[in-house]
Amino acid sequence: MTKTRKHETKQRLIDAGWVMLLEHGYHALGIQALLDATNTPKGSFYHHFKDKEDFALQVVDEYMGAVHAGLQACLGDQGMPPLTRIRNFFEATLESYQSEGYLGCLLGGLGQELSAASDVFRAKISWCFAEIGRQISVCLQEARARGDIPASIDPERAAELLVDCWEGAALRSRLRASPAPLTAMLDFYFQSVLRPDSPVSVGA
Amino acid sequence: MTKTRKHETKQRLIDAGWVMLLEHGYHALGIQALLDATNTPKGSFYHHFKDKEDFALQVVDEYMGAVHAGLQACLGDQGMPPLTRIRNFFEATLESYQSEGYLGCLLGGLGQELSAASDVFRAKISWCFAEIGRQISVCLQEARARGDIPASIDPERAAELLVDCWEGAALRSRLRASPAPLTAMLDFYFQSVLRPDSPVSVGA
Repeated sequence: MTKTRKHETKQRLIDAGWVMLLEHGYHALGIQALLDATNTPKGSFYHHFKDKEDFALQVVDEYMGAVHAGLQACLGDQGMPPLTRIRNFFEATLESYQSEGYLGCLLGGLGQELSAASDVFRAKISWCFAEIGRQISVCLQEARARGDIPASIDPERAAELLVDCWEGAALRSRLRASPAPLTAMLDFYFQSVLRPDSPVSVGA
Repeated sequence: MTKTRKHETKQRLIDAGWVMLLEHGYHALGIQALLDATNTPKGSFYHHFKDKEDFALQVVDEYMGAVHAGLQACLGDQGMPPLTRIRNFFEATLESYQSEGYLGCLLGGLGQELSAASDVFRAKISWCFAEIGRQISVCLQEARARGDIPASIDPERAAELLVDCWEGAALRSRLRASPAPLTAMLDFYFQSVLRPDSPVSVGA
């Protein structure tokens, strides 16, 4: 996943915050621990970020930027059939989870922790999931137009369902420090959902 | 869901903690806020609980007790076919989410927040999910023995998958304050997974 380069100190804080938020969540993240871990004076932090919430939201933007880049690289790969592109995106995501030690999805983690406490985070994370679903649904539309999946499939509903099931499997992968729940979920989805009598058919 | 009655003060603290943990998670829960909300002196809290971790673990026990009671009431209802019993359990769980204002699942919330920070919570929550999966798999075995689902289905894998997808849909339900993701997931599962060529078949 690629990252747009920001001011060096800012980027260092965001990179460290990404890992710390993924491991410990929002409330357990101490700004002082972040400053210590990155050898950054407090003034620098507040030069780049208004407060902890602003910082975490910018980490989410960075995370979502990486998700976007992954979506673009995989879903935009016109040499592959659309269903393969979608699966490739999730396989690539699984690889990045693996490289992080199976800490799951930052959007799912912050969404769980903060959605009741903060309307700002709730709206932000909801938007992220909706946007991922939207891009996948475009690819499913293409699969439907090519006849790779039945005309009866509702691409929006099928895409939403995939994102939701992925997030549950990501939690279980985090708890078990294992890729198995994610692989099982993808196998299930791609073999089950995209059939003529699928429950995500139009008008079902 | 039924609850075993404990000492009155202890029960009051656990009941309030249940809602507070569901809303705000572990780190955002202040013991002082809990004492204020329940009009309890600090000494009483430490009479009943060793510390905040002990308290949260006992809330999880209480939550899991309610899940157990729900599993027993629904899965043990021999007047219903086994697949209906499983669906009834999740429909009852959905109703309890609704009555709480769609705050999702406490096990999923604490699992996300604490699994990297605390081996105690990770083990506890993993055990809870495995136990729920185990009870559902017993019911799926019964469905298989009756011929309600194909003999090729692996009940353990199919049960694990159901629990995982449910948790993802519960997160989305929390974010959207809506039952729709949960209902969509259940429809999908019950119409898709339990077929002869299901990807959770034995040896798949």
